[in-house]
Amino acid sequence: MLSPCDGAFLQALEATLPEGTLRPADDRYLSEPRGRYRGQAGAVACPASVDEVSAIVSAAQAARVGIVPYGGGTGLVGGQVMTGGPAPLLLSLERMNALRLIEPEGGVLVAEAGCILAEVQAAAEAADRLFPLSLGSEGTARIGGLLGTNAGGTGVLRWGNMRDLCLGIEAVMADGRVMHGLKRLRKNNMGYDLRHLLIGSEGTLGVITAASLRLFPRPARTGAAMIVVPSPQAALSLLALAQARLGEGVSGFELIGGQGPRFLSEVMPEIRQPFAQIPDWMVLVDLGLVASLDPAAELEALFGDAAEAGLALDGVIASSEAQRAQFWRLREAIPEANRKIGAVASHDVSLPLAALPDFIDRAGPALGALGDMRINCFGHVGDGNLHYNVFPAPGKSRDAYEALRPQVIGTVHDLVHSFGGSVSAEHGVGRLKTADLQRYVDPVAVATMRAIKSALDPAGILNPGAVLGG
Amino acid sequence: MLSPCDGAFLQALEATLPEGTLRPADDRYLSEPRGRYRGQAGAVACPASVDEVSAIVSAAQAARVGIVPYGGGTGLVGGQVMTGGPAPLLLSLERMNALRLIEPEGGVLVAEAGCILAEVQAAAEAADRLFPLSLGSEGTARIGGLLGTNAGGTGVLRWGNMRDLCLGIEAVMADGRVMHGLKRLRKNNMGYDLRHLLIGSEGTLGVITAASLRLFPRPARTGAAMIVVPSPQAALSLLALAQARLGEGVSGFELIGGQGPRFLSEVMPEIRQPFAQIPDWMVLVDLGLVASLDPAAELEALFGDAAEAGLALDGVIASSEAQRAQFWRLREAIPEANRKIGAVASHDVSLPLAALPDFIDRAGPALGALGDMRINCFGHVGDGNLHYNVFPAPGKSRDAYEALRPQVIGTVHDLVHSFGGSVSAEHGVGRLKTADLQRYVDPVAVATMRAIKSALDPAGILNPGAVLGG
Repeated sequence: MLSPCDGAFLQALEATLPEGTLRPADDRYLSEPRGRYRGQAGAVACPASVDEVSAIVSAAQAARVGIVPYGGGTGLVGGQVMTGGPAPLLLSLERMNALRLIEPEGGVLVAEAGCILAEVQAAAEAADRLFPLSLGSEGTARIGGLLGTNAGGTGVLRWGNMRDLCLGIEAVMADGRVMHGLKRLRKNNMGYDLRHLLIGSEGTLGVITAASLRLFPRPARTGAAMIVVPSPQAALSLLALAQARLGEGVSGFELIGGQGPRFLSEVMPEIRQPFAQIPDWMVLVDLGLVASLDPAAELEALFGDAAEAGLALDGVIASSEAQRAQFWRLREAIPEANRKIGAVASHDVSLPLAALPDFIDRAGPALGALGDMRINCFGHVGDGNLHYNVFPAPGKSRDAYEALRPQVIGTVHDLVHSFGGSVSAEHGVGRLKTADLQRYVDPVAVATMRAIKSALDPAGILNPGAVLGG
Repeated sequence: MLSPCDGAFLQALEATLPEGTLRPADDRYLSEPRGRYRGQAGAVACPASVDEVSAIVSAAQAARVGIVPYGGGTGLVGGQVMTGGPAPLLLSLERMNALRLIEPEGGVLVAEAGCILAEVQAAAEAADRLFPLSLGSEGTARIGGLLGTNAGGTGVLRWGNMRDLCLGIEAVMADGRVMHGLKRLRKNNMGYDLRHLLIGSEGTLGVITAASLRLFPRPARTGAAMIVVPSPQAALSLLALAQARLGEGVSGFELIGGQGPRFLSEVMPEIRQPFAQIPDWMVLVDLGLVASLDPAAELEALFGDAAEAGLALDGVIASSEAQRAQFWRLREAIPEANRKIGAVASHDVSLPLAALPDFIDRAGPALGALGDMRINCFGHVGDGNLHYNVFPAPGKSRDAYEALRPQVIGTVHDLVHSFGGSVSAEHGVGRLKTADLQRYVDPVAVATMRAIKSALDPAGILNPGAVLGG
């Protein structure tokens, strides 16, 4: 049983930390992007060094006070907000935002957990390198949270998830000890891979304080096209065609169902639409090529082949970086439009590539049987990752569907599971999907996770209730 | 304390298994490639299904009998041979060698642990896909062992280690329960990543019985060159140049010190040498390009730029696949030549790329201070991974150096560690490097590994003594 983060605990802790480290938990720390939960906390600790993190965790361990590690606050599954139980201490890494090292020729940088993703991207670019993680919240999300949740985004197809981009981590374990693991190595087979265990554990096994991250050569030339496809199956065949022609040169491949652009024209008419008539399905193909290949010519040739094979019905090839940015702006604006419309339920699912078209074919009718709803299906189709979001019928309010919500979610998740998919592709479990983890993940795997949690955090102070539930 | 795998245990176990599952432990299971250890075992179990593996592990758990999981027997660190303590049961996965599924369009296959790597490569090729793990022992090494040790090889630069190629695993845990995790997903953030924990744990946390593996498009065109470089630093600069020009098209980049070719000319004169005079340093550059790029032309252009920058002194570009194969034959023959010469000590180390030239500069003199020795330094330089092997001076026997051996190893490993490197890049810890793990790995990390081992295998039956020692 945990104790609350109360005045006595804070007073004792404050004496051991530099002034200003402990702060009141103001509103921004207690809300989350979708407004579904409101958290609580006794205070926010903002340490400036790994030693201070160690002191804070040690004190919390001694007093059995829960700690909620806090990054940029952009998580969508409630991993950063604890709504019930004894009030925890929020541990924000925002002041640990130093770039400790950048080695362009070694292809690595070392960033503290509080670094904002966009700043890391910019530092890499300034050194003529690429840090390829890219996602909508990159201006706010921090490295620690991105690692804790193994974030994905639009570059995964080519460069992998956050875990694939990390060579080493420094972390504070539940007993306050510091695990020094900032190796800058491509290969290291000295024992169990604790880096991969901590990445994606959402702050429940340790607090990541810094990481060494991989940098890549910047593609010499970039290009993009929006291509209308007759179906999701055609989108996958188009991807195979593109990769057969261009290999890793295909940097991004996003499926966009018609509902997204229709929402945009309704609530964000300033977003430029590439086609006069919104198509049912289109894909955004993004290329990053070597200097000797011309992206526009390659896209034209790809489109030609695709059209001949019946995989492409129409297309626009970006004639400039500005137009490429416009295509991406449309893609990135879809979640904003979704928020303005107000979803009944949002799903972040992944499927084996071969099962993806079947899933889409069957999910619509299954939801239709529950009621009249609109579906916005889009996402990182090359990774088998769909954001499958469900909205009220035109003219109806979200509130009218609140009672249906559990059934909607259950229907989508059961179907995903039946195809061997995952009900959290890239957002994590947090507190939103703890019941899903019990329901859909192999019971031996869940028991193994529990055994690891008990071994590494026996008192359960680290992000209580996240991932494995209460 | 474990019990020996004795007659009573075997008799009881035999009654629960199909006839022929238990076999005598003949010599091939008890030796290892470098002939440094000889193992012992009460018997070898060769189950044909995951249920039989489960029954065997359950029985061993109940009787507290140690189990040594056995793949192809090619490991170089003694992970597969238990030399002391109560005789274990060897658990060979060789009969679990079915390819359960191949989905070329989904980019995935599911292979049982006993599949031989070369067979998996061939199955992928037959489906016009690439399974890119490639290493010298690919005709013998099995998928389970390759996962257990997170094997590397020559394709890591472009496609990653074995762990990067695995999407999911099925494993039998220490209590005999089966963990069903054969997901075929690119993205899955549902809880702790147990796949990455089991991969590289060398059979000490669970017995991997099957895996879903990633397939890739086959590069349309391939090419290779041998390029003489003035120094290891120049090799790294040449790699950066090649990657800036060709991105992921650089599929392999191997450094070859002069000693390897000199050994070849001495003990394997049938191997064709690319240069009349053996150079001190050369690199094997391997390309896998898209159809619209010509490998020979790209290599010529690369060589021209490199020569101008002082990074290339001489070069041969393969004019055919046969010549490319010849280049690779030379590279792959070096370990064979090493065995014929007889090493004082072999090291599988990795370094931050930026530190690699300094390491090479300093290691030679440090060893020279110990005695008169020859050094064969070669390896996957793009991964920072060197096989840094030490040999007797000409005319001297390996036995004369036996007393020096610990000092040689200590000197190399201490130097690697001082540069932030790893003393096992791709071979693992096994039983050979358990003391190194205690010495060089962060103590909090080691304590965390022990806590995990105790939680998942409290009786210590799985590969006793490997990785974490006795």
